[in-house]
Amino acid sequence: MNKAIFYHAGCPVCLSAEQQVLEALDKNRFDVEVIHLGEDKEQIRAAEEAGIKSVPALMLAGNVFHINFGASLEDVKGGA
Amino acid sequence: MNKAIFYHAGCPVCLSAEQQVLEALDKNRFDVEVIHLGEDKEQIRAAEEAGIKSVPALMLAGNVFHINFGASLEDVKGGA
Repeated sequence: MNKAIFYHAGCPVCLSAEQQVLEALDKNRFDVEVIHLGEDKEQIRAAEEAGIKSVPALMLAGNVFHINFGASLEDVKGGA
Repeated sequence: MNKAIFYHAGCPVCLSAEQQVLEALDKNRFDVEVIHLGEDKEQIRAAEEAGIKSVPALMLAGNVFHINFGASLEDVKGGA
């Protein structure tokens, strides 16, 4: 099973991507995890090290795909 | 069947998104179309009207998701 991790921060752009892009993934082939960086702040550092610059972002097999632009990771850190 | 349209221009960022994000979509629920705006320039105007600003981009049910950043539509128009 491949791993898909969707990072978001609860913003409207994030929700739109979650509802549509994440929903469109093939769940038979991907084990999907959703991480809310606004609520789960201890995950921010690992996300940053993985190359996440902004949310929403989708990580597939370790590769980061930033989807539109909701908020920078800096903003998420600052609680914006 | 839902419609998914992937717009690209053959750039490395586009190819990465095509290979991974597009590949991850559930083909049982989505009818996937790929449009190469670099080769199919008559599609640029419709893409622009649909809200595409850069490639690669994925359109799901009429909503545009820009994935990372490969090239602006202006660059594609100019043949860059």
